[in-house]
Amino acid sequence: MTRKDSVEKIIGASKSPKKPSGRAFAPSNIALCKYWGKRNVELNLPVNSSLSVSLGRLGTETFISQADQDQVWLNDELVTSDAPFAQRLFRFLDLFRPADDYKFTIRTKNNIPTAAGLASSASGYAALVLALNDFWGWDLELRELSILARLGSGSASRSLFHGFVEWHRGEAVDGLDSYAEQIDVQWPDLRIAVLSVSQEKKAVGSTEGMNRTVETSALYKSWPQQAERDIKEIRQAIADQDFSKLGAVAESNALAMHATMIAADPPLLYWLPETVELFRKVWTLRNDGLPVYFTIDAGPNVKVLFEEKHETSVREYFPDAKIVIPFE
Amino acid sequence: MTRKDSVEKIIGASKSPKKPSGRAFAPSNIALCKYWGKRNVELNLPVNSSLSVSLGRLGTETFISQADQDQVWLNDELVTSDAPFAQRLFRFLDLFRPADDYKFTIRTKNNIPTAAGLASSASGYAALVLALNDFWGWDLELRELSILARLGSGSASRSLFHGFVEWHRGEAVDGLDSYAEQIDVQWPDLRIAVLSVSQEKKAVGSTEGMNRTVETSALYKSWPQQAERDIKEIRQAIADQDFSKLGAVAESNALAMHATMIAADPPLLYWLPETVELFRKVWTLRNDGLPVYFTIDAGPNVKVLFEEKHETSVREYFPDAKIVIPFE
Repeated sequence: MTRKDSVEKIIGASKSPKKPSGRAFAPSNIALCKYWGKRNVELNLPVNSSLSVSLGRLGTETFISQADQDQVWLNDELVTSDAPFAQRLFRFLDLFRPADDYKFTIRTKNNIPTAAGLASSASGYAALVLALNDFWGWDLELRELSILARLGSGSASRSLFHGFVEWHRGEAVDGLDSYAEQIDVQWPDLRIAVLSVSQEKKAVGSTEGMNRTVETSALYKSWPQQAERDIKEIRQAIADQDFSKLGAVAESNALAMHATMIAADPPLLYWLPETVELFRKVWTLRNDGLPVYFTIDAGPNVKVLFEEKHETSVREYFPDAKIVIPFE
Repeated sequence: MTRKDSVEKIIGASKSPKKPSGRAFAPSNIALCKYWGKRNVELNLPVNSSLSVSLGRLGTETFISQADQDQVWLNDELVTSDAPFAQRLFRFLDLFRPADDYKFTIRTKNNIPTAAGLASSASGYAALVLALNDFWGWDLELRELSILARLGSGSASRSLFHGFVEWHRGEAVDGLDSYAEQIDVQWPDLRIAVLSVSQEKKAVGSTEGMNRTVETSALYKSWPQQAERDIKEIRQAIADQDFSKLGAVAESNALAMHATMIAADPPLLYWLPETVELFRKVWTLRNDGLPVYFTIDAGPNVKVLFEEKHETSVREYFPDAKIVIPFE
């Protein structure tokens, strides 16, 4: 089973543009129950189901059209064709070309400050798949588009949707049951403060980090069980609009994910000294009665979950934070 | 099975002084494969076997004699009787009193800088048990004394010996097969640089930390397996005098232990920002070719393992380090 097989099953022979170009926007997302570990590396099939919240108007807008040669413009700058970013994108587009000499121009813009360290591959591959759907008039279901986006980047499967989103791990070998779905609950008061401690590119990318963890971390064996327990509790917390439960489980899920990496060989520690300082600051504020919880992805930056009524305090304690309103 | 039962089995009725006072020294120790988790809290029976290196002349010297009331002097200062340190000690002495009104004076001195954050309860309870053995002329085997020391503090079972020491977890319910033994290998070139980042008393003691981890950390389930693998490799590295293997396994074992804590609920993070800074410094130096590895116990301070030939470099990069020679 290859990525190509997945694409054939979903879009069949429908590979010709219906319009001069395609266009789409997809939001970035932050997982509250993390995706960590692939059971199939080629198809980005996850070991565990995950649950995220999309970031409203923050994300990626992408235009696609036919061209003489593959070209990708990121935030109005042409990316050199041999850059890993472009290479990965062109290989993904290989899955969709009507003929080998069919080439694309992609123009993609993130309205997320790059410094924030928010996953742009999630919104990027989601927007790209939506733009292809628009360009070629596939009229696919979001569930099918979610599978296509997953082939580009696992967490992109979740960026097809706004609000809370669950990506079902699925069981099938072909991965056709591994897609994301929206959870039909709004939470307008939810806020996320993004605290950026480093803008450097991380030394170990998340795919490599996942693979190393799965292969070498003895503690990873317990992760699927932890993730299963956590996703149930987060689902329940969302249904109950129970903020402190949502925060507590999201925080402990993120720490458990990092724990599996720390126990990898060689160890994977994405934290910087400032990361630990922010953890401690969040804990101190919480001890002092301010309901704030953090989550953290495979990088050094910290995201603080809070409710709208505490925005003044959060702004005071984290003056450099970028505050995101997921349900805007 | 209580602590009292263990004591009765080992020393029987032999509870009267043969000398006016007893005296003994026991070294501190640093575990290369950590003790983390009790399968019996009362008897300090561990989930996993552990392996340490004793710190030579750094440790605790203790004098004991009969007195009108229980009193303990720590580094020449009288400790107030209601301090947790004194309370724990007096409860331990309860196991040995010939009569309820039999009281002790204990004078105990650590020649380890308290700031170094080296476990003093290990050397403390080991020295106390040795001093009792001297005072009362028990003439017990070290193996038996190791069991008695374990009843005071788990890692004290290892501080009965110099050099490399393995504490066998044992299987028996009464814990009489859970004792430490010396490994008959010398490693005169081994050095440990103790890097102190905080002298504050830790917020969560190691017993409480262990218990919370065992009870709440899903990832702890994989720890016994990791510890079993690590202790085998460390034994082999010692037999082969393979420093880089010793260092690598010790470092990964310590990180895995911390990973189990980080995944506890609520999370247990003993690291300070400076701790992470030191981890990264060690990794950078190692990347640059200097064979240094760290280990870290349930606290923020870091211990760097290296060989004598690199002492100049280590002193240069860590000017504030206290350098320990275990085989002096």
